[in-house]
Amino acid sequence: MKDDFSSQLSARILAGAAPVVVGLDPRVQSLPTKIAPGATEPDRILAFYREVLPRLAPLIPAVKPNIAFFERFGAAGFGCYEATCQLAKELGMLVIGDIKRGDIGSTAEAYAEGHFAMADALTLHPYLGRDSLAPFLSHCSASGKAVFVLVRTSNPSACEFQDLETPQGKLCDAIARAVDDWGSDLGDPKGFSLVGAVVGATWPDEVVRLRALMPRAWFLLPGVGAQGAGFSDVEGAFDSRGLGGLVAQSRGIMQCFSPDDAQWLDHIEQAAVEFARGIREVATA
Amino acid sequence: MKDDFSSQLSARILAGAAPVVVGLDPRVQSLPTKIAPGATEPDRILAFYREVLPRLAPLIPAVKPNIAFFERFGAAGFGCYEATCQLAKELGMLVIGDIKRGDIGSTAEAYAEGHFAMADALTLHPYLGRDSLAPFLSHCSASGKAVFVLVRTSNPSACEFQDLETPQGKLCDAIARAVDDWGSDLGDPKGFSLVGAVVGATWPDEVVRLRALMPRAWFLLPGVGAQGAGFSDVEGAFDSRGLGGLVAQSRGIMQCFSPDDAQWLDHIEQAAVEFARGIREVATA
Repeated sequence: MKDDFSSQLSARILAGAAPVVVGLDPRVQSLPTKIAPGATEPDRILAFYREVLPRLAPLIPAVKPNIAFFERFGAAGFGCYEATCQLAKELGMLVIGDIKRGDIGSTAEAYAEGHFAMADALTLHPYLGRDSLAPFLSHCSASGKAVFVLVRTSNPSACEFQDLETPQGKLCDAIARAVDDWGSDLGDPKGFSLVGAVVGATWPDEVVRLRALMPRAWFLLPGVGAQGAGFSDVEGAFDSRGLGGLVAQSRGIMQCFSPDDAQWLDHIEQAAVEFARGIREVATA
Repeated sequence: MKDDFSSQLSARILAGAAPVVVGLDPRVQSLPTKIAPGATEPDRILAFYREVLPRLAPLIPAVKPNIAFFERFGAAGFGCYEATCQLAKELGMLVIGDIKRGDIGSTAEAYAEGHFAMADALTLHPYLGRDSLAPFLSHCSASGKAVFVLVRTSNPSACEFQDLETPQGKLCDAIARAVDDWGSDLGDPKGFSLVGAVVGATWPDEVVRLRALMPRAWFLLPGVGAQGAGFSDVEGAFDSRGLGGLVAQSRGIMQCFSPDDAQWLDHIEQAAVEFARGIREVATA
């Protein structure tokens, strides 16, 4: 469908948005001290995003709330996650729910129903194989939503299992081939599919290698900044139009200020502008 | 420590409790029609467990709420998960939070903090490797809590990646060796460790094979009943004392009645008694 996740993302980037997604991983100790100082933690987090997201919405097509940092505050934190997703949508941003779920079919259906009601796309674990993805893919087919499957993660231990040699190449290669297959009939056949891949920018050679195995997959690329990767490390994800990659950045933008700095909101906007400029240059190089 | 998860579980089973964990996967359409008919879905679910869990507590050492079936109702559902965990603890049951999380270290720390506050043990994905487990293992070491790592899952597609041949055997064998290693310094050195494994009862030959690779791991065994495995399929998980396995059962106990049957609570208790008896026989055979 014309307005599916992939088409919307492509259109926004082709219209000038940077291929960047800002990660929302709220850490209370890093919030500006002046943000709702007497309120509960989830209320302070939401108040922070009510200030920040309107500044980011003109610059960046999507946000990626990581639900771990909301769930730690229990039901109120979960409510804050819901409200943050809703706020981003109202501002016209796409929402990638970074939930990294993965369970057997009947459970996966419950996750898909609950989480696609909040987000436009979801991150998923591949370990249980195709039938654990199927309920999510049905939703993608019906509603144009999308998933990003963990293929090659950004953390140092990624190599422990993901690099194991198998008859299909490394384990992450076997998963990459499956991602390509799962997405083969989802999304515009001439464009990117609705089954994307998480590929850590911390492994630039792998970004290039895995791109060949998943030509139609959006790459969600964490790892630039705090985790050590640089701008140029994501280059291999992009096609000649500057499409195909979506570079995640969280701490470098959302924690770029000291909590008692009165100009914190301007600092965030400036950091986002600079990050967006840097990534746009690499993507269209 | 003497009262760590593993020691408590062993003590209860040696004292006569069946090595069974009841899965709490609430499905509203399967609730008794007379349970809080006008209330919200999460409130109906909690009202159901307030009736059921006191009947199960004398029979079964642990419950395993699957958070997917709570999260689908948003923040109120998450609150219901918290309240259900609390209720089970107050009744003296161990709580295995079936959350199947798995993320990079800094995110894993947020999950560990949030979820170990609610549950005594957690299920986890292994795909990201050791550093994604480390924050959970630190909590286990400090507080005697436990994790169950997905090794060989019960679903039909489990073989897709988990059976891929690697230089360390199948992928699930490589994970099994890691589970054994991760648990090597956790828990009573003469007993079971605090790093258990999820091993589907639907693959009885794998239960036997994987037991040899993880001699000190508790096996959490889903798949008996609705997923097709029988009582005897879990036999290979148990040692000569009847320890080492914990057989999960959900639908066969919690949905064994028709919603308008006035005797539903007795039916649940009877189903639990029968399941416990059957598993105890197999475990101590």
